[in-house]
Amino acid sequence: MLRWLRSVLRGLRGGRPRPEAPRITPRSSGVVARRELADLAPSPEVYLGRFGYLSLVLYENLGRAVMAAPTPAAKSALLRAAGELGAAHAGVTAELRRLKKQDPAAAMEPYRVELDDYQRRTQGADWHEILITCYVTAGFLSDFFAGLAAGLPKALGERVVPLVRVEIGEGILVELLRAEIADNPRLAARLALWGRRLVGDTMLVARAALRIDGVGPSEERIEPVFSELIAAHTRRMDILGLTA
Amino acid sequence: MLRWLRSVLRGLRGGRPRPEAPRITPRSSGVVARRELADLAPSPEVYLGRFGYLSLVLYENLGRAVMAAPTPAAKSALLRAAGELGAAHAGVTAELRRLKKQDPAAAMEPYRVELDDYQRRTQGADWHEILITCYVTAGFLSDFFAGLAAGLPKALGERVVPLVRVEIGEGILVELLRAEIADNPRLAARLALWGRRLVGDTMLVARAALRIDGVGPSEERIEPVFSELIAAHTRRMDILGLTA
Repeated sequence: MLRWLRSVLRGLRGGRPRPEAPRITPRSSGVVARRELADLAPSPEVYLGRFGYLSLVLYENLGRAVMAAPTPAAKSALLRAAGELGAAHAGVTAELRRLKKQDPAAAMEPYRVELDDYQRRTQGADWHEILITCYVTAGFLSDFFAGLAAGLPKALGERVVPLVRVEIGEGILVELLRAEIADNPRLAARLALWGRRLVGDTMLVARAALRIDGVGPSEERIEPVFSELIAAHTRRMDILGLTA
Repeated sequence: MLRWLRSVLRGLRGGRPRPEAPRITPRSSGVVARRELADLAPSPEVYLGRFGYLSLVLYENLGRAVMAAPTPAAKSALLRAAGELGAAHAGVTAELRRLKKQDPAAAMEPYRVELDDYQRRTQGADWHEILITCYVTAGFLSDFFAGLAAGLPKALGERVVPLVRVEIGEGILVELLRAEIADNPRLAARLALWGRRLVGDTMLVARAALRIDGVGPSEERIEPVFSELIAAHTRRMDILGLTA
């Protein structure tokens, strides 16, 4: 495992005492390490192509959550969340089309194999794990891509941030997960473990989106970015009463 | 098998010669047997509850098609179609809420087991069968519920028809299916068979939505309705060059 990843994960594993779960839901960090990320942003085509395919993956995760949901109420709520992510995907493909008449599908294709693999590794074994997957991966990657947009041309960045920061149904996911965990406290340990595995895989996906110049971005530049993302992840897990 | 079903299916099995697939895509029948269906419509609560859960099922079918799609272009296109169906579901649940402050989830619950079973029986073994499932079941049931809306209170019916006649991505499905069948002509026989099985299961789901008064609606009243729905189904299969 890469040193930077080992180093940021070390903080997670420390098992420091968790505060009581706060009552509010997060729109966690808002602005993540924009200054550091700006220099590491890829070209608009690469950014949009990668996030375009990623939004399909996140959408499919929510689709799986809809299917696995045991009640009509949960299905309806998750379907709303999926609709918002679907609209974000449509917005990103529209930006790709706008960009020198780029074919959106061709721009997304280079990331398909890698991100399909990410999806397989993070898909979860049951409804509860699927919900955590939706919550953790979309939350982390939304923070990350919103920060990375600081390195895009200004006008494009301003249009893209609201798309990648789409309300991915975080409130709905928190509500469903809290209710499930309250009904079955033994879930907490399993879901905390699952969340920890997810964040490792998700950090690798985020890192792959950074522009690599020759020798690649130095560890020093990347570490603060990921520390901030991990802090936001920890707050997200806190809200569920789970150890990050 | 019920007599009415056997009788309407008999027409399908005749294998009469198929015309060349027309070039246009259908919004097939527009108005299906409104007069006959009007008398058989259930109460608004039953209609909306049943269609509400059904729209979840049709949405999940499209979600499965997104997941199984092999290319980013197909995924994006199917995701758009799913978004339209998701909006229809939201519209129906809004009507349920409007109806004497009905809880949408409670109104849908009575149809969950039956429609989950329908979904399992019709889910399809691979991407091609899933696409046919989306095309055949949503097309047939959209026609049926639009016709049945003639028996709802007038103002409600007028709001509901555009929801149930939502553009369920028929154009997208036709485009994808035609391309796949052209690439692999041996698919046609298998998909025609699959379509035939789907229409039988789908007719049973439609029939279950009719109001049953004491001895139930007479065969004579139901048969013309289903003959018209089957004719629309046959046109839908013709467009793909498949035998209904």
